Order: sequence, then structure tokens, then C-alpha cells
Amino acid sequence: MDLLKDIASLSPVEVRHLIRAGKFTKPTSGLASGYTQANLVILPKALAYDFLLFAQRNPRPCPILEVSDVGSRELHKFAQDIDLANDFPRYRIYRNGIFTDEVTSVADYWQDDLVSFLIGCSFSFESELIAAGIEIRHITEGVNVPMYNTSIPLESAGKFHGNMVVSMRPIPENQVVTAVNVTAAMPKVHGAPIQIGDPKSIGITDISKPDYGDPVTIKPGEIPVFWPCGVTPQNAIMQVKPEFVITHAPGHMLVTDIKNTVLKYE
Amino acid sequence: MDLLKDIASLSPVEVRHLIRAGKFTKPTSGLASGYTQANLVILPKALAYDFLLFAQRNPRPCPILEVSDVGSRELHKFAQDIDLANDFPRYRIYRNGIFTDEVTSVADYWQDDLVSFLIGCSFSFESELIAAGIEIRHITEGVNVPMYNTSIPLESAGKFHGNMVVSMRPIPENQVVTAVNVTAAMPKVHGAPIQIGDPKSIGITDISKPDYGDPVTIKPGEIPVFWPCGVTPQNAIMQVKPEFVITHAPGHMLVTDIKNTVLKYE
Repeated sequence: MDLLKDIASLSPVEVRHLIRAGKFTKPTSGLASGYTQANLVILPKALAYDFLLFAQRNPRPCPILEVSDVGSRELHKFAQDIDLANDFPRYRIYRNGIFTDEVTSVADYWQDDLVSFLIGCSFSFESELIAAGIEIRHITEGVNVPMYNTSIPLESAGKFHGNMVVSMRPIPENQVVTAVNVTAAMPKVHGAPIQIGDPKSIGITDISKPDYGDPVTIKPGEIPVFWPCGVTPQNAIMQVKPEFVITHAPGHMLVTDIKNTVLKYE
Repeated sequence: MDLLKDIASLSPVEVRHLIRAGKFTKPTSGLASGYTQANLVILPKALAYDFLLFAQRNPRPCPILEVSDVGSRELHKFAQDIDLANDFPRYRIYRNGIFTDEVTSVADYWQDDLVSFLIGCSFSFESELIAAGIEIRHITEGVNVPMYNTSIPLESAGKFHGNMVVSMRPIPENQVVTAVNVTAAMPKVHGAPIQIGDPKSIGITDISKPDYGDPVTIKPGEIPVFWPCGVTPQNAIMQVKPEFVITHAPGHMLVTDIKNTVLKYE
């Protein structure tokens, strides 16, 4: 049986069941096409107010899709029949800011004081860009999107502060306006670009050397376009070195019941 | 000197200085035309997480513009040169859910644990509707907007729960689409209508008897259009009967430095 071929046709809840049962532990790119996938940050309640406020003050890099109730492994809005401790294919555990474990379930790590934050992800707008006829270079080249630290300061909130991390996609000059329009309509998944064509102005000195992810080819006639990136909140959290944090493993997202199109009208 | 005529031409910061000096204590409607005005809720830090989460889960009726740092009387984004304890013309003090005082300054009531929430207000979208050629009936008739309790349940968060409160504006049939488009572009100030033309479907049995504000004339050929209303969060708070809450007095808002037009692109 070709599991990957099979899984591509499953509904979001069927994907979650498969993952929950430990039968799928790979990246979620391409699963349940058209449905929103989400990043995860799980923090103890003691840090939840500062983090929620940090996200409120920095909605472009930190678009909150949903926040769980304290201690709950369920959601109200983005998924029914959901177990936050099992429905991501892979999780990462950090203690005092240090990455200690990568696991396929965090049921054994669960604490009654944990709060889960689901954060919007650029997967959602990339599928809309492709639908609009725009090539996504890192997908074509089969690598991770290039991401860069910038000099753009964030609004701090309590313990959380830092600069914005951005992702870059090379866009042909005559498609830049389309790329702006498509993504501006989706503020819940980072929205419009934050910079177009001038990496130095946001503190990026060498575009061939991303700080995270992989470099991609920028062809003649293409403009590097920069979007706020979901690595931003994870970065800000790690600088605080909290006693205990759980995140999803990169690329191993939650497949939700909400379609990307619906996010435009939230 | 005609203070009202004079004040209409002042900048937002000049308005705030006048109010701060105790020289203007009236409703702020019409002041600093084009600039966003904001509702206020001040709560002790102990309730701030639940309230911020309640707003995150119910952004249509509770659009947060900005949250102060704990104990601070300043803002980072919506106003420079601001004193939250003096720059609203009138405040209301509630103790254990009971309205105890209306004052022009809350400096004497200030506590180090207070958090101020600035909430978007329909003043912002009404000026855009007028610019689009739509008559706002309660302004024409010189009364307060009619507001109604509904059967639309809110997402609860910690201590906070309840149903949505809506405001109603009668709109000529051939302008309803324009009214939807204009307000949908302003999600930070309640956004698009929540119901068009069928009050019973949201639990409103007698449109001539609003629960708050005043009734207005609905002419033949006009449709009652309902928007999420900023009374919603105040209602939810009063049901919790917190030990101590400060709000603005109705109509006595903060005049901010941010133009309504800018809110569309936030």
C-alpha cells in the first residue's frame, strides 16, 4: 500500500486519526489539500499572558489561530475530534531553552497548567499563490523556505522581545502585485509582504545565506519578496529560556478542519 | 470663545491635552475628524489573561486595538503623549459589578496592577459609511445608536462568557452591499455586519425596543442591518462582577493618533 498516496486523499480528521495512532510521523506538507495547517507552541500558564499579549502586539509574524483552555488537549474552533498531545506527527521538547527531545506524542509530558497556541503558517498562503499562477521556488527546488533574521524590532510584551524573522520567495517582477494582493487578503497567515526587493533595508546582508532553511535560486527579473515568518515567536520564546516548552517539529504541523479560503473572511 | 468650534479643528494630541487639563468633559463625537476613537476597559492583572483570551476568541464584538503594560498609563502604538488616567473626558468606576462613580480623572484610583484595554469603536466605520454616501439614521435623528441583546453565543474564556450585543443601522436596500463592503474592510472596528434583515433569527423580538441606546426610524425600503457591538465586552465583564473595573463613560472616548484609514491596513 502506498500510504503517502492514500493519505493525500484523506480528510483532516482522518489524517489526525492516522497520526494519533502513530501511523504517520512525516512532514504534513500536501496533506488534506486546501485545509489550514497550524504551528504549535505549548507553554505553562505562567507565561501565557505575556505570550498572548506578544502575539496581539505582533500579529503579522505571530497570527494566533486559536488558544486552548488551560490544561485542555482539545480545541473549540479549528478542529473537532482532536488530541493536541498526539495529533501532530512530531513534537520538540525544550527545557530551559535547550532542545532535549523529539517525540511523536507528548501525552507523557502533559501538565495541567499547559496552554496550547496554534499559530498561522505560510503553507496556507503558498497554496493560494500557486492557485494564482505563482511558482514557489523552494517547492520547485524541493527545499525548505529560506528564512532570515532582520533588524525589524518587534513590540515587546513582558518577558518576550526580539526582531522579526522573515521568509523569502523570489517573485517575477510582473507577478509582485498579484503576490501582494493574494497574501494581503490572508492576515491570519502573515498577510502581505513586509519588504519587497531591498533585503539590506531590513538588515539582511547576504541573501544567499539564510539563517534558517535553505537558499533558493533567484533568477534574472525576479525580486526577493519578504514575508513575516512563524519562526519569529519560537525565536522570541527561546530567548526567554522558559523552564518547559513544547513545539511542533519543523514541517510537522496540525491539519485543521478549517479551509484556507475561510481564513480570508475571519 | 466657542470652545466646541475651536476644539473641532484641534489635532488628537491637542484634544488630549485639553481633556487632561480638565477643560473638556463632553462626548468626543466629531472631534479630530478622521482619527480613530477607542473604548476603554481597565481591569486588574488577575483578570487580564481571561479577558485578552475572550477578546481573541471573539474579535468581531471585541476588537482589541492595544493593551497597556501592567500598571502603565501610557501606550506604544495608538498614542504618544498620553495619560490613560486623564485623557478620556469621563470614566466610570465599578466595584463588584456595581456602578459607583463617574469621574473626569482616575488618577486617584490608579493601582500598579491595572491593565488598560483599548477596544475599537463603530465611530470609525460610521465616518467611512458616511463618506460612501450612506446616511447614519441615529446621527440624523440626534440619538444614540440602537443596541440589542441577541441569542448569538460568544466563545467563553475563563470567567468570561455571554451572548453578543449588536448595533443596528437601517440601510436602504440598494446600499446594503456598499455598507457590507465598507465595514468588511475594517475588521479592527467590528468589520462586516453579523446579520442583515432578519432580527428574529438572532433573538431580537421587537426592533422598536432596543436594550441599550435609542430606537430609530426604519423607512420603507430600508433593511435593518446588525453589526457586532462594543457593548458586548462590557456586558461580559459586568456579569463576572469583578472587584474593580474602570471603563470610559458612554460616548466619552479616547481620541488616538491613528487615522481610521490606517486601521484598514493593519
